[in-house]
Amino acid sequence: MPKVSTTDSGINIEEADRLLGEVMNDPMGGWFKLPFDEKTLDLSHIKAVASRIQASSNYLVCIGIGGSYLGHKALLSAISGSGITKLLFAGNSLSSYELLKIFEEIGHADYSVLVISKSGTTLEPATAFRIFKKHLIAKYGEREARSRIFVTTDAEKGKLFEEASREEYERFVIPDNLGGRFSVLSPVGLLPLAVAGVDIDEIIAGAREEAEPLLPENRTPLTLSNSDALKYAYARHFYRSNGADTEILAVFEERLRDFSEWWKQLFGESEGKNQSGVFPASVVYSTDLHSLGQYLQEGRRNIFETVVKITTPLANIPIPNFVDDPDGLSYLEGKNMDFIQKKATDATITAHRNGGIGVIEIEIPDLSEKTLGSLIYFFELSCAISAKLAGVNPFDQPGVEAYKSEMFRLLGRN
Amino acid sequence: MPKVSTTDSGINIEEADRLLGEVMNDPMGGWFKLPFDEKTLDLSHIKAVASRIQASSNYLVCIGIGGSYLGHKALLSAISGSGITKLLFAGNSLSSYELLKIFEEIGHADYSVLVISKSGTTLEPATAFRIFKKHLIAKYGEREARSRIFVTTDAEKGKLFEEASREEYERFVIPDNLGGRFSVLSPVGLLPLAVAGVDIDEIIAGAREEAEPLLPENRTPLTLSNSDALKYAYARHFYRSNGADTEILAVFEERLRDFSEWWKQLFGESEGKNQSGVFPASVVYSTDLHSLGQYLQEGRRNIFETVVKITTPLANIPIPNFVDDPDGLSYLEGKNMDFIQKKATDATITAHRNGGIGVIEIEIPDLSEKTLGSLIYFFELSCAISAKLAGVNPFDQPGVEAYKSEMFRLLGRN
Repeated sequence: MPKVSTTDSGINIEEADRLLGEVMNDPMGGWFKLPFDEKTLDLSHIKAVASRIQASSNYLVCIGIGGSYLGHKALLSAISGSGITKLLFAGNSLSSYELLKIFEEIGHADYSVLVISKSGTTLEPATAFRIFKKHLIAKYGEREARSRIFVTTDAEKGKLFEEASREEYERFVIPDNLGGRFSVLSPVGLLPLAVAGVDIDEIIAGAREEAEPLLPENRTPLTLSNSDALKYAYARHFYRSNGADTEILAVFEERLRDFSEWWKQLFGESEGKNQSGVFPASVVYSTDLHSLGQYLQEGRRNIFETVVKITTPLANIPIPNFVDDPDGLSYLEGKNMDFIQKKATDATITAHRNGGIGVIEIEIPDLSEKTLGSLIYFFELSCAISAKLAGVNPFDQPGVEAYKSEMFRLLGRN
Repeated sequence: MPKVSTTDSGINIEEADRLLGEVMNDPMGGWFKLPFDEKTLDLSHIKAVASRIQASSNYLVCIGIGGSYLGHKALLSAISGSGITKLLFAGNSLSSYELLKIFEEIGHADYSVLVISKSGTTLEPATAFRIFKKHLIAKYGEREARSRIFVTTDAEKGKLFEEASREEYERFVIPDNLGGRFSVLSPVGLLPLAVAGVDIDEIIAGAREEAEPLLPENRTPLTLSNSDALKYAYARHFYRSNGADTEILAVFEERLRDFSEWWKQLFGESEGKNQSGVFPASVVYSTDLHSLGQYLQEGRRNIFETVVKITTPLANIPIPNFVDDPDGLSYLEGKNMDFIQKKATDATITAHRNGGIGVIEIEIPDLSEKTLGSLIYFFELSCAISAKLAGVNPFDQPGVEAYKSEMFRLLGRN
């Protein structure tokens, strides 16, 4: 569904076909067919449990970090859903202040906890879970606390799996054949989104629409050349090959700020290896045009920009008339904000291209569940192909252990 | 008050002394002595008007963008103040959706509007002001609306100055001798902060503490060599001279996220010119260690990192005991979150240095008003010197007009 405009590159169809095959057959390529994998998804079970949580809880505290956090946070913000049950996010930092803020918001209301962790031993979520578990037991007693703890973890091993089995917590599975940053369309992201009142059927429908033409049975050179995800992957590769080392994802709606954070992990963790990779940065316009605009216009030129445009405005306020024209804007009277927003978008793209940086445009129709589901899949696919084009494995993350092992050493863990 | 640790550079005292002189005597160097300029600041007048707004308004809608927005937003978030009057921010985008959210939050409560704009013709704040002014008049009538509009603008010229004079709005002055990104310690930032209940005397006291040793009458080679702001400027210059083109400001508290946005404008707009400059990016740890951690550990190596550490934790929760040690974290029992936070900080710095990126450490005692006032001044000063070391004018922004003129062309302004 996302449409890509770029003038600077084309798709090498044969190569793309081969790389898609490699990605699909990779042991960690499970996200490729995930939207069609009804067993792993089991949407009706997810929705049933979500309803139970909604019935018992004003808040759901979602404990997780990285890929067990950013995807559903991104979609929740973008959709701006307001369900009966409000999601709060914990276990993504070591800040006591942020934890106390969550307790303050919950107050005397009812809540449940969802812990999302493959191993159960990552320090940030594990310490947060200890704190909330203790609190749940004090508030509700051992037995009811048990019914208010939900776990998404490995299918058969790990500390959290063992604890959940022993305590009989309701349990969901993080599939084994995909990495955390590719997991938002699995139970990892879908359960919390369903609790927040988001239509997860539509999210998966959007992902399917994006994935379908690329399935081997549908894939022909013709459809490949029409694939916008491949267009984006090849455009990124073009700028990278021509010396760009920083990509800026530009959005024009605050609601997409968290989406950019998910995107940063996806691309940064997939490509940032072997002392190479494009550094992923993000801006929210127009506020950041009045902050990083100078740099983008005239700073160093090893940058390219990917601009996300939304066709149908989320809302549209007319410019009010003032007969005395105090600000000289009377030429805009009769127009509305979206008219100006769209001109600002075009002006930004033109000015930045004139300033010497490459711009890729991605247009999406709206911020509906369906569109966002397709956008997630679009980026996952283009990221995998883009990393392949750079000659790195899109699915490992050998460097993330460095700080963890250093930390365990400093903490004196045996 | 901020203490800088870096092993990789020293200060050239004679050069620093000369550059400080240039900065101080620059026509746009007014921020240098601003903390001591009681006439421009007039804190008692600011506080008196702030009290009036607090008495009449549940909300103050602050309209502004770039330097007329990011500074007070940064300090408000960092201090996490909770006054009687809540600040809402408008005019920093062209999103109708975000404007409607503000109207929804205000509902039937009382509010006032503060417009901050040097010219009054910047499109984002000017359109937002039109919309709020119309609403204020409809809600309160012409006369009361007039008493609920506050303006911070040029002392003697511009559309907004003319309108404010004609309508007799309460008016504050944006000093002529400093740029927007250096204006937070002027009425631009101090009025909204005072309305939010922030202690602006303490903010200025902190800035004075930082500025005092650098005043010509106090400045000797000895104090210069002890200046942490100069240490930071020279350390940045060292990494830049050695090929680094991206700086990452790393904080460990969510409350500092908006501070990083202010920092990005300050450095990006001051240094990003002549096809050069260090691209300013930011991370909030530990969440971003699980997102950009892989890239920082093993991606391209033309990055350096500036880590802000806070000595006294904002809060400190102990790790709860569980006799069955479900997660293998029993070795942390008896410890508290801040102990782990500090180890995580040290581990990050060590791991990143081992991975081959330079790290500058900035330690501040807390997030009090006084500390944050000194931190603002610290960054302003180091930014000015750093830009001078790079051979660019810290105080102009020739590139920000490019998108504006392109936009006016597309909008058909004559």
